[in-house]
Amino acid sequence: MQIIKTIKKLRKEINKLKRRNKTIGFVPTMGALHRGHLGLIRRAGKENDIVVVSIFVNPAQFGPKEDFRKYPRNLKQDAGLCRKAGVDIIFYPDAKEIYPDNYKTYVFVLKLSDCLCGNFRPGHFQGVATVVTKLFNMVQPDIAYFGQKDAQQAVIIKKMVSDLNMPLKIKVLPTVREDEGLAMSSRNAYLSEDERKDALVLSKALNLARGLIKAGLKDAPKIIARMRKLITAKKTSRIDYISIVDLENLKPVKKVSHACLIALAVWIGKIRLIDNIIVKK
Amino acid sequence: MQIIKTIKKLRKEINKLKRRNKTIGFVPTMGALHRGHLGLIRRAGKENDIVVVSIFVNPAQFGPKEDFRKYPRNLKQDAGLCRKAGVDIIFYPDAKEIYPDNYKTYVFVLKLSDCLCGNFRPGHFQGVATVVTKLFNMVQPDIAYFGQKDAQQAVIIKKMVSDLNMPLKIKVLPTVREDEGLAMSSRNAYLSEDERKDALVLSKALNLARGLIKAGLKDAPKIIARMRKLITAKKTSRIDYISIVDLENLKPVKKVSHACLIALAVWIGKIRLIDNIIVKK
Repeated sequence: MQIIKTIKKLRKEINKLKRRNKTIGFVPTMGALHRGHLGLIRRAGKENDIVVVSIFVNPAQFGPKEDFRKYPRNLKQDAGLCRKAGVDIIFYPDAKEIYPDNYKTYVFVLKLSDCLCGNFRPGHFQGVATVVTKLFNMVQPDIAYFGQKDAQQAVIIKKMVSDLNMPLKIKVLPTVREDEGLAMSSRNAYLSEDERKDALVLSKALNLARGLIKAGLKDAPKIIARMRKLITAKKTSRIDYISIVDLENLKPVKKVSHACLIALAVWIGKIRLIDNIIVKK
Repeated sequence: MQIIKTIKKLRKEINKLKRRNKTIGFVPTMGALHRGHLGLIRRAGKENDIVVVSIFVNPAQFGPKEDFRKYPRNLKQDAGLCRKAGVDIIFYPDAKEIYPDNYKTYVFVLKLSDCLCGNFRPGHFQGVATVVTKLFNMVQPDIAYFGQKDAQQAVIIKKMVSDLNMPLKIKVLPTVREDEGLAMSSRNAYLSEDERKDALVLSKALNLARGLIKAGLKDAPKIIARMRKLITAKKTSRIDYISIVDLENLKPVKKVSHACLIALAVWIGKIRLIDNIIVKK
């Protein structure tokens, strides 16, 4: 396994692989790898000749008051996990390599970027779309892998790839959860023991919604009200949003009459967590 | 020579060529081909195994009051010229193929897109950057060729390719001119005989500037004033801008003390023409 830090070196390696017609699976990450990432990596290994993982905490997708500086970083541990999972190349650039002086170009996916998390994190998805475009152009993968945990990100990346005719496939794999249901996230590492227990309320609220829908409730505002009640019972919680939206255009639905995304963002103490499920009618 | 109308068919052909490690030279055009385009095509033929020319009048780069509808279109003549010039593939999609319903993704090159022509054509360079990104992703060229006549476009495309790490080279070839100096442009076809004579004032003003600089004049506003005087002597003329700017950041310079771009946009009757030269100090 190689750890490559410059675009020049990466490009040289990729060109070598391309000339030999090797297929490339790519997993873009911000490091602090957990079982969610490792699932993507293993799947990439099964479906491609070569697996590239990028580890880059992307400043362009953090707001000025967000946790860019204290976002968990641990290359040594990440590299160990990657090696064990069969990764061929880790791309680990620094910020100047990705955003040199006078950087000016951004990719916008309109409308899909303004709702849900985009409402609370202005500029976030522009930063995501831009860095993912850059990484795709560097790695030139055949398939890139993302987690369903970041549901809005997955929708936006798929739309961007389709709109800009990028020559690759996107695969989105199901959210990996702890035994108690908490969705895997690098930010879980911030939670105290008590907060971790309270954080279970996110997946519990989603399960409640699934149960209500199975039992025949279709009215989205009523479902959301029940979820809200469950979550606000936890004193450490503060809700950014709970939304039931169309799977493609992310617009709120009033009735759960077709496949929908139920997504939420909730602060537990000082940690903002997200989770979601897809429900069929 | 093939004329391909769908992205699906194009991608199939490109994949075939890539697997055989053929190099691809790409000339994106809006058709109405003239000797400027043909110079790009011939150069592409010399430097690559395969030449792809796209012909697509891109609605996203025209303003609501601009000449999208009456922009000259003549596939038959263009195809004849391409065949003679050794083109392998013409990509000739319709607008729905490039911008399907619910299209949402745009590429912005900040700052460079707002000045000069961008000032007078809001959204124009966003449309250019977006369609060029899409075409690059479809054609996957090794080298793409642009004309220096569209100087700002060339600067923006080069910046975009560099910023987004697109895996190709951009080559910008000198402006091709009529014998009397008029820069080749598809829009020249709109000019009446009298207007065509008046239009010579654009290149004359640029030559005047070059002469003044050679003679030792360095003060940009003074040079521009002299150019303005020459142009406004033509009754059919109306100046959008005359600017002397830095070659890379396109910011106006006060003194011509390093290599600069002198660019202008002038209406001759109802036709908006652009021209430019690069001057070394």
